[in-house]
This record gives sequence, C-alpha cells and structure tokens, in this order.
Amino acid sequence: MAATETTGKVAPEPIKAEPPSVTKYFALVEVVLRFLLFASALVAVLVLVTSKQTKRLQFPPFPLVITMTAKFNQSPAFIYLVAALSVTGFYAVISTLLSFYSLLKPGYFTKALSHFVVLDVLLLGILASATGAAGGVAYIGLKGDSQVGWMKVFNIYGKFCRHVGASIAISLFGSIVLVLLVLLSVYSLSKKIPK
Amino acid sequence: MAATETTGKVAPEPIKAEPPSVTKYFALVEVVLRFLLFASALVAVLVLVTSKQTKRLQFPPFPLVITMTAKFNQSPAFIYLVAALSVTGFYAVISTLLSFYSLLKPGYFTKALSHFVVLDVLLLGILASATGAAGGVAYIGLKGDSQVGWMKVFNIYGKFCRHVGASIAISLFGSIVLVLLVLLSVYSLSKKIPK
Repeated sequence: MAATETTGKVAPEPIKAEPPSVTKYFALVEVVLRFLLFASALVAVLVLVTSKQTKRLQFPPFPLVITMTAKFNQSPAFIYLVAALSVTGFYAVISTLLSFYSLLKPGYFTKALSHFVVLDVLLLGILASATGAAGGVAYIGLKGDSQVGWMKVFNIYGKFCRHVGASIAISLFGSIVLVLLVLLSVYSLSKKIPK
Repeated sequence: MAATETTGKVAPEPIKAEPPSVTKYFALVEVVLRFLLFASALVAVLVLVTSKQTKRLQFPPFPLVITMTAKFNQSPAFIYLVAALSVTGFYAVISTLLSFYSLLKPGYFTKALSHFVVLDVLLLGILASATGAAGGVAYIGLKGDSQVGWMKVFNIYGKFCRHVGASIAISLFGSIVLVLLVLLSVYSLSKKIPK
C-alpha cells in the first residue's frame, strides 16, 4: 500500500511490490485450508453421529433373540470426539468467513490472523487428543485385548465399525489441516519481519 | 546491542533500548518452558515404564493361584505414549541446549526459533493424540464398558493404575507446555513486525 503511494521518485523500489501479492497468496491458501477444516469436521461429525447399528443376535439351538445396539454415545471417547469436532466445525465456519472477508479487504488480515493462530493451536491440541482417544478405544474394539479379557466387538457391528473408522480418519485429516494452518500463520508472520 | 553503540548523540532514542530486553525475556521464558517440557517428558516416561505390577490372585475355596502381570507394553496405546514421550524428551534436550546457547548469544535466536516452532507444532499433535489414546484406554480400565462387556481392571492393579494415571497427567502438562511454546513463538514473531 505504502509503496504505491510514492510515485514521485524515479524507479521506486520494484522489489517492494512483491509483499502484497505474497500476502494475498497466503490469505487465499488460508481460506482454502479453513474451508477444508470446516468440511472435514462436518463430514466427520455426520459420519460418527449416523453410526447407530442395531443387531439381532440369535443363537441357533435356542429360540432366544437378543437385540443389541451400538451407538457412538455409549463410549465417552466418541462423545469427546463429537464434541471436539463440533467445536472445530463451528470455529471453522466463523474463521472461514472472516478470512474470506479479509481476503477481499486485506487490511484486516493481520489482525484476524494474529487472533486465529491462538485458537488454531488450542483446537489442534483438543482435536488431536480426541482423535487419539477415539482411535485408542476403536483399536480395542477392533483387535480386543486378550490380556485383560476385553473381547473385540467390531466383528459384530460392521456398519458401526466402518463409520467410526472413517470418522477417525477424517478427524486425523482435520488435525493435519490445523497443523498446516498454524505453520502457515508462523510462516506468513516470519515473512513480514524485515531482514 | 546497536542502540548501546551509538553513544555520540544526545539522548539516542531511549525507546529503542526496549526490543533487545524483550527478546532476552522471551528467550529466558523459552528456555524455562523447554526445560519444563524435558522434565515432564522424562518423568512421564519413567513413571509409565516402571508401572509393572505382578498380582497373585487366589480364589479362597480352591488352592489355585493365578499370577497376573500388568505392564505398559500390553496395550498399544501405552506403547504409543512411551514413544511420543521419548521423542518429545529427546527433542526437548536438544532444543533446551540450543535455546540456552542462543540466550547467551542472541544473534542465533531468530534462526533457531523459526525452525523449532515447526517441530513444536508437530510434536504437540503427536503428544496430544498419544495422551488422548492412553487416556481413552485408561478410562475403560478404570470404569469398564458394560455395553460391550469390557470389565474394569484397575481395581485389581492399584500400583499400575496410579502410575498410568500420573503419567497421563504429566503428559497433559507437557502438551500444555508445548501449546505455550508455540504461542510464545508466535507472540515473539508478531512483536518483531514493524507497526
């Protein structure tokens, strides 16, 4: 902005014209990443919430039929993951809109960026730990733990297993997007420091 | 440094003397935080590795005695936590020494800082997910899951339970220290941008 105003001098430092386009490029990448974060959080929540499966178990010699239901809210780890993904998705909507707005009006970019990176780091910690917790519980469900007598249950619930696995994978993708967002913020901050 | 060399002029901008002391203060806080990270990772690994407990279970009417052992390497989640804590501790040793060195010679601070923040963010993701995974598994061990028939086992192993719980709590502290380190890096970078 300041470089374009000084038109009186001869050849007013052509290298100064680069920073605005670099900032614009960073802002565009940030909008795309934030939208990806929103999309992944939304898809992961929907996949996990719709994972309910009811199974009728019948043991052939007996006429007894047991109806068993697997749902995400039976395990605290999956509830934690849904909560973390909901918060991430809600934050991602707001931050996508604000960073898109600051892409159109570049003056607001620095202010928005410096506040978002704090929330990005906090949400990265929350989402990564929620993904880890759900992954740890899902691994026991998949493989069981013979040492303490926890039997595997995912061979009974096929649909539930697929939904939980897909949701954890998408949450992992969301965590990686958050890492990239923090690194982008740090990189774009370090670009603004004069050499 | 540059402000102290210009002693020839009358009152050479006293406000310019602040930035070096602020940088020095940031560097000191960073060394303290990195040392805390190293200490917490070391303590958490030691507490988790020494959690082995052997229990002799005897059922009174029968003469049968069953020897059961609880150890961290029976669960993949605890192995992941030990691995993540070891990597974090190893990285914390190196980064503590380097940031202490750059505290003595401030010229190296910017270069070291800009490289460390990338690793800080990555390790935050890894350590938070490992803490979450171990916490999820430990919660099942503590409370059980009656829906799928996983019984609680931490009432049998008292010492193992205490060690695992303490290790997870210290890992959580380490994750918070990593969040603070990333925020400190971002804050100290944003301080260097000219207004």
